[in-house]
Amino acid sequence: MPAHTYQKATILGPGLIGASIGLALKGRGMAQQIVGLARRTSTLEAAKGIGAIDVGTTDLEEALEGADLVVFAAPAMATIKLMEQTGALCSVLGGSKGEKPLVTDVCSTKVEVVEAARRSLPNEVEFIGGHPMAGGESSGPEHARGDLFDKATWVLTPGDQTSAETVSRAEFLARALGANVLILSPERHDEIVSVVSHLPHLLAAALMEAAGEMAQEYPETWQVAATGFQDMTRLAAGGAELWRDVCLSNAIPIGDALAAFRQKLERIEAWLSRREGQALEEMLVKVREQRIQLEE
Amino acid sequence: MPAHTYQKATILGPGLIGASIGLALKGRGMAQQIVGLARRTSTLEAAKGIGAIDVGTTDLEEALEGADLVVFAAPAMATIKLMEQTGALCSVLGGSKGEKPLVTDVCSTKVEVVEAARRSLPNEVEFIGGHPMAGGESSGPEHARGDLFDKATWVLTPGDQTSAETVSRAEFLARALGANVLILSPERHDEIVSVVSHLPHLLAAALMEAAGEMAQEYPETWQVAATGFQDMTRLAAGGAELWRDVCLSNAIPIGDALAAFRQKLERIEAWLSRREGQALEEMLVKVREQRIQLEE
Repeated sequence: MPAHTYQKATILGPGLIGASIGLALKGRGMAQQIVGLARRTSTLEAAKGIGAIDVGTTDLEEALEGADLVVFAAPAMATIKLMEQTGALCSVLGGSKGEKPLVTDVCSTKVEVVEAARRSLPNEVEFIGGHPMAGGESSGPEHARGDLFDKATWVLTPGDQTSAETVSRAEFLARALGANVLILSPERHDEIVSVVSHLPHLLAAALMEAAGEMAQEYPETWQVAATGFQDMTRLAAGGAELWRDVCLSNAIPIGDALAAFRQKLERIEAWLSRREGQALEEMLVKVREQRIQLEE
Repeated sequence: MPAHTYQKATILGPGLIGASIGLALKGRGMAQQIVGLARRTSTLEAAKGIGAIDVGTTDLEEALEGADLVVFAAPAMATIKLMEQTGALCSVLGGSKGEKPLVTDVCSTKVEVVEAARRSLPNEVEFIGGHPMAGGESSGPEHARGDLFDKATWVLTPGDQTSAETVSRAEFLARALGANVLILSPERHDEIVSVVSHLPHLLAAALMEAAGEMAQEYPETWQVAATGFQDMTRLAAGGAELWRDVCLSNAIPIGDALAAFRQKLERIEAWLSRREGQALEEMLVKVREQRIQLEE
C-alpha cells in the first residue's frame, strides 16, 4: 500500500480512540504534524506526553487551520456541537494537490452524527462517518495504543451524497492504521451496534447494579462473584458520559433491543416457573454452538 | 497446615471441577487412590489420561467401596439421583481412625442438593454441601487443572444438622486445595449465586441469541461484534446440560432475579424514550465506581 502523508492531521478530542489514531498515524509517518483539541489542558498534556499529538490547543480555529485531515473523536453529543462550530470555520482548513480535506469521525453511533455533518459541514470538505470497533472499557489518552486498530473492524458509513473518492480515501486511511474496513449505511450500523455493543453495555451496567443491591443485603456477594461475573460487568467500567451520549444518540434502536431482550428473559422465566428444562436446554445448546463458532 | 491423607477419594463425575479436584489431591499427595465414576468411559479415559484419577469405573458400588472421601461432582440433577443410589450403598464406604467418611458435592446450587443429601444419605457419613467458584465456560476433564482452586472462593453450606467437625474437615480440604472458604447457608448461597452467577449466564445466552437473530438479518453482525461482546457472551459457551440443571435446581431465585432485572431494563428504556440523559448518566457513574472498586 503506498504511503499517504497528511500535512496536518487534527484530532478533535484525543481520548482513547483519538490519541490511538494519533499514535498510529505518527508511527507510520502518515502525518507531518498532529494537532489535538480538547476542553481540558490535562487531556492535551496526556496526549502530548505519550506522543499522540505534536501540538495541543483549546482553540478550534487554531486546531483546524491548515488541516487536511480532521477526525472528530469526542463523544457523540460533543462531536455534533463541534461539527456546527467547524462548519463556520471551514475556510481555514488546508488541503493539498487539489484534494479537499478529508473529515471523518469515530463516534459509536452514526445516524445522528452523519446527519449533523450533512447539516453543518460545507461541500468544500469530504466527510464520511466512521466507527473503529476498538477500545473496550478503558478511556482517556493514557490508555491509547498505536496498534489499537490492528485487525479491528473499522466501519465506514457513506451516505447518498458521499463520493466514491471519499470512501476510497477513508478506506485507505483505516487500512493503513491496521483495520479491516466494513461499509454499512448509518442506519444499518446503528441497528447492529444497538444489539452487539450498546445492549451489552447496558446489561453489564444493570448487572453491576443488581449485584450492588445484593451486596447491600449480603456483603459476601463480592466474594462469591467469580470470573464469569467479572467478564460480564467489565464494560460497566466504561466512561459514563461517553455511554450516556451513545445511548441518547441511538435511543430508538437501543430501546427496541432492550424491549426484545426483556421478552427473551420473560420467556426464560416462564420455562423456569413451569420447569420446562427441555426448552431451556435447546436454547442453551443453540447459543453454545453459535458462541463456539464465533471463537473459531 | 498438616497433611491429611485419604485412603480412597471417589469423584462421582470427573468433569472440569471433579477432575481438577483429583489433580489437586494428587499433586498434594492427599489421596492414596483416586477413583472416578462416570456414565461414559470416554470421560473416565480422559480423566485418567491427565492423571486426575487412578481408576475409572461405571459401577457405583465399586466406586464407593472403601472410600473415605466422596465428592459428588456431576450436574445437580444427576448428583441428586446419585445421592439416592449412594444412600442404599453406604455400608460399603470406608473410613479410618474412627472417622466417618467425608461426603461433599460441588454443585452450583445448594438448597435442593443439600435437601437431597439429607433425605438420601445416612448418619454414617459426614455430609456438607460445597461450591467451589471456579471453572467458567469450559467443561470436561480435558480442561481440568490442579491449580483451578488457587485463591478461588469455595463456599461451604452447612445445614442445621451438620457437625462442627464436618465443617472443619471440609474447610481443611478446600483450603488445602488452595481455596478461600466462605460459609453460607444453602438458601443464602442460592440467592447470591442467582444474581452473580446464574443471571449472568442467562444474560450471556440471551445476548448470544439476540445477536444470532440480528446476524440472520445482517450477516455483518459478527464483524461488528468487538471484544466487549465477546466478554459478554463467553459464558454462553458453557455446557447446556449443566446449566439447564443449575437453572432448574435454583428456579425460584433465578426467576426473581430475572424479573428484577427486567424492571431495570424497563427503567432504562423509559429514560431513553424520554431522553433523560442525566438519570442514565447517574446510574452509569454509580456502577462504574462499583466496578472499578471490584477490580482493586
